[in-house]
Amino acid sequence: MALISPSRRIRRTPFSDGVEAAGVTAYSVYNRMLLPTVFRSVEEDYRHLKEAVQIWDVACERQVELRGPDAARLMQMLTPRDLRGMLPGQCYYVPIVDETGGMLNDPVAVKLAEDRWWISIADSDLLLWVKGVAQGFRLDVLVDEPDISPLAVQGPRADDLAARVFGDGIRDLRFFRFGYFEFQGRDLVIARSGYSRQGGFEIYVDGGDIGMPLWNALLEAGRDLDVRAGCPNGIERIESGLLSYGNDMTAANTPHECGLGRFCDTLTAVGCIGRDALLRVAREGPVQQIRPIAIAAGTLPPCDRPWPLMAGDRRVGQVTSAAVSPDFGEGVAIGMVRMTHWDPGTTLTVITQDGPRDAVVREKFWIFK
Amino acid sequence: MALISPSRRIRRTPFSDGVEAAGVTAYSVYNRMLLPTVFRSVEEDYRHLKEAVQIWDVACERQVELRGPDAARLMQMLTPRDLRGMLPGQCYYVPIVDETGGMLNDPVAVKLAEDRWWISIADSDLLLWVKGVAQGFRLDVLVDEPDISPLAVQGPRADDLAARVFGDGIRDLRFFRFGYFEFQGRDLVIARSGYSRQGGFEIYVDGGDIGMPLWNALLEAGRDLDVRAGCPNGIERIESGLLSYGNDMTAANTPHECGLGRFCDTLTAVGCIGRDALLRVAREGPVQQIRPIAIAAGTLPPCDRPWPLMAGDRRVGQVTSAAVSPDFGEGVAIGMVRMTHWDPGTTLTVITQDGPRDAVVREKFWIFK
Repeated sequence: MALISPSRRIRRTPFSDGVEAAGVTAYSVYNRMLLPTVFRSVEEDYRHLKEAVQIWDVACERQVELRGPDAARLMQMLTPRDLRGMLPGQCYYVPIVDETGGMLNDPVAVKLAEDRWWISIADSDLLLWVKGVAQGFRLDVLVDEPDISPLAVQGPRADDLAARVFGDGIRDLRFFRFGYFEFQGRDLVIARSGYSRQGGFEIYVDGGDIGMPLWNALLEAGRDLDVRAGCPNGIERIESGLLSYGNDMTAANTPHECGLGRFCDTLTAVGCIGRDALLRVAREGPVQQIRPIAIAAGTLPPCDRPWPLMAGDRRVGQVTSAAVSPDFGEGVAIGMVRMTHWDPGTTLTVITQDGPRDAVVREKFWIFK
Repeated sequence: MALISPSRRIRRTPFSDGVEAAGVTAYSVYNRMLLPTVFRSVEEDYRHLKEAVQIWDVACERQVELRGPDAARLMQMLTPRDLRGMLPGQCYYVPIVDETGGMLNDPVAVKLAEDRWWISIADSDLLLWVKGVAQGFRLDVLVDEPDISPLAVQGPRADDLAARVFGDGIRDLRFFRFGYFEFQGRDLVIARSGYSRQGGFEIYVDGGDIGMPLWNALLEAGRDLDVRAGCPNGIERIESGLLSYGNDMTAANTPHECGLGRFCDTLTAVGCIGRDALLRVAREGPVQQIRPIAIAAGTLPPCDRPWPLMAGDRRVGQVTSAAVSPDFGEGVAIGMVRMTHWDPGTTLTVITQDGPRDAVVREKFWIFK
């Protein structure tokens, strides 16, 4: 692996000083911002995430804020998910599609009020699409990126840690709901959500100035809980079937191909820009779809490029995320597979840069029995 | 410095195999793609760039292609530069602005035909803005990212090397013009341009499959010219006053603040989305502007965050790119300075993460006498 060159263009976060002090060893770049990826080792970080609690600098989950009379209308133009029943205080996972039904992002929408929304984005400049659409349709809405930096608390001891800093009330927060909790005189939006299946919260830190005070308060309060600086873990998220935009799907894929058809209410999502394109897809169904793929391997090279999935000489898909799982004792992977070969139990060959490996299509991701 | 974690989301390029074989030691991420930043050392690469010739993997300069009856109209909506006199075969540097006059990108527009353009972008997903605008205004135009990967040939021996591979005709190409040149049976757009002041070309490699054959052909043909794999050099580009979008300017800046007023024909660029906002800016002039800043320093930490520029206790600007120049024997930097302190010779203090340094506003960038 090579080094990453520092520059202002790859933005630091309000928590970067803490991340460095905790001994980060590797980064990715996400939304033109630093995203820590390794502290001790991927395997050691993985074990700790599953047993204790971690603080994650996920400031790179930038927010796109919509404010104004047309905010709700614009939000519905962006996604095929029907938002009419969504209440303030709720978070919805919303595929965002263009006019062809291709996915531009797979964010979480946070409804603060009827006329104020945050879109907590994955890795693409969704701000530019939303601004362009608002401009072209002459909507009465302000669209910008506020100074909000998410900090995640993840792991089985997340409730205990959060309760110490924000009060016991946070234990009652339901999944994908948010509430306002006070820290140093400021009300912060905190949601029960996060990019792992180990449980926890995402704190929408409003104002970079309280980033390090909050970071330090959490580490201090959790000392006897073995709290550590951590980050989204490549192994855990694959075992858990958490997709990654840019890895497992791109603008070339429809939500249906990504197994996100249940978030597409295409018939009733009137106004969605991609609705016409998706109506056809919803009727006919996708011809390829995301599947968990088990790979027979004790070691694997980094999945830094799509790995062809072969049935004999025929390419029937590709793997886009892969790692070796200590808990499951095999290679765990996410792939896009043609319908002719997507049935559970189908045996295939995956071509890595280090050569071919045996692979099997699974019915479910690993954590689901 | 930390390592960069490989993943498919950070795209490899058609030249990545060659870059790795040449011993790349550090990368940046640019348009969600790998951009090599160091081979031997920044200083050694710098010296070689100024004396010989280098091949640069700048595939991360992605293209946004506009095709169709409304292509020219859309292109003019994006920029305040008047494009009416632009001919097929020309390249224009075009600031791209939003409705507030804020810069969304500073690309080079390549006019292939009246109804077909490429926008060779800096680091932002300009594709999403252009698609959103086209969608909202219901324009008759196709907008997408074609499989075009620029490869640059830069350095004083660039003409000699290019002539060996593409024929002597390439020597007659004028600055910011392009022509079609043949390689292995394919016609490639080649422009006399590039992100250094050492001279050279950018080859718009059409189709990833011929990436490595072309890379190898150039290295082979230039063996006695001491050709090497290289990359945009942080020192050379600052000495030369080549701005970097995301470093030296963001969406918070107007073109006038970036010293790009000469590319804004705001009165005649009818249709430009940011025209109303820029008319006011053009009349009143900017209150801050980009300036070359000399820093008294034998070493400098990486400029990975804006460095405040102070006049006493008062913040009057910021430095966003900086390095120590071997040729000029001082710190060379690019800063944004308030009008009260932007006159050449003004002495200031720059606050780096390693402490304060003396700084002076210069009239011109270093390479200009």
